[in-house]
Amino acid sequence: MFITFEGGEGSGKTSLIKAVSKWLFDNNLPNITTREPGGSEIAEKIRDILLDVDNENIAFETEALLFAAARTQHLKEVVLPALAENQVVLCDRYLDSSLAYQGYARKLGFEAVLKINYFALKHLPNFTVYIDIDPKVGLKRAGSRGKLNRLDLEELSFHQKVREGYLELSKIYQDRYLIIDGNCSLNNLIEKTINELAKVIL
Amino acid sequence: MFITFEGGEGSGKTSLIKAVSKWLFDNNLPNITTREPGGSEIAEKIRDILLDVDNENIAFETEALLFAAARTQHLKEVVLPALAENQVVLCDRYLDSSLAYQGYARKLGFEAVLKINYFALKHLPNFTVYIDIDPKVGLKRAGSRGKLNRLDLEELSFHQKVREGYLELSKIYQDRYLIIDGNCSLNNLIEKTINELAKVIL
Repeated sequence: MFITFEGGEGSGKTSLIKAVSKWLFDNNLPNITTREPGGSEIAEKIRDILLDVDNENIAFETEALLFAAARTQHLKEVVLPALAENQVVLCDRYLDSSLAYQGYARKLGFEAVLKINYFALKHLPNFTVYIDIDPKVGLKRAGSRGKLNRLDLEELSFHQKVREGYLELSKIYQDRYLIIDGNCSLNNLIEKTINELAKVIL
Repeated sequence: MFITFEGGEGSGKTSLIKAVSKWLFDNNLPNITTREPGGSEIAEKIRDILLDVDNENIAFETEALLFAAARTQHLKEVVLPALAENQVVLCDRYLDSSLAYQGYARKLGFEAVLKINYFALKHLPNFTVYIDIDPKVGLKRAGSRGKLNRLDLEELSFHQKVREGYLELSKIYQDRYLIIDGNCSLNNLIEKTINELAKVIL
């Protein structure tokens, strides 16, 4: 079982994943939590290039290819081996991030992004938890928590486009999307997500 | 005019490109010489990951995506601006390297490599000079010149596959391929290449 978590900055993904992992262990479901971009030594080196605020000249197409490269490496080194051991994999961001950020908000188009992610396309998640939150609220939370990376620093209108992209994707891939309203407290977000996941995986 | 130079390790590409550049200047054709992977600050950072001998776990698909990322960045930052200024661009390696190394020798297939290089496909070279040389001879030359990178260190059978890949590509793209026999002295290689180029670009 491969479950991905998507949402804008400050949506609460990281804390939510920790809580879901604990809940799965409590239900005797071995699992690992991991993240993109990164999650393996080589993928983290690619992450450094992607998120470094000094690399402001990265072309949108280059960005999409680097995300796809980090994703492929992480799949091969972390996700696929864990799935082969029957662990549940909880992954912070995956293919849908590229579709929402580069495909939709950067306007490269879903088709171009799917082309370069041909390897990830062979390994789609069973479920994608999308935390839907007002980008203004999310960015405020992310900002208060400290250092912002190259993508966090984009304008509000960019993050609004990202949200539109996710909502578009939730229609295309409705079979695997679980949309959770994130305009609430973290405890409430965790409760709602676990309720939804319980329906489909327990 | 966009001219790429392809060939295995130790084929003499670097010295040849210098000589071709001088010859073009002598004929009043402004030109730049550049190389892949790399050629711009961000692309050089990607090059470092690709060629670092410590990164032996890079998956073949990741490798292909990183080459495509470096290529796209280099195109946008270096090649396309120079072409727009009517300079001749002489580039050490390009799309055909990915097709021969990752597509053919790594067995990812030409189709998969072309997919992820969709941006470079919009900017194919006018001519590709392929220096055909016995891999045994090339590797001996490359080894005697010092430090070998992650790809140079592959086995002889890999480099023989790369050569087969190039010969396959020279049939598919015969309109732009100039095949030069590289089993000769550097001076002879330069003379033959300039003779061939003179026929098509002067």
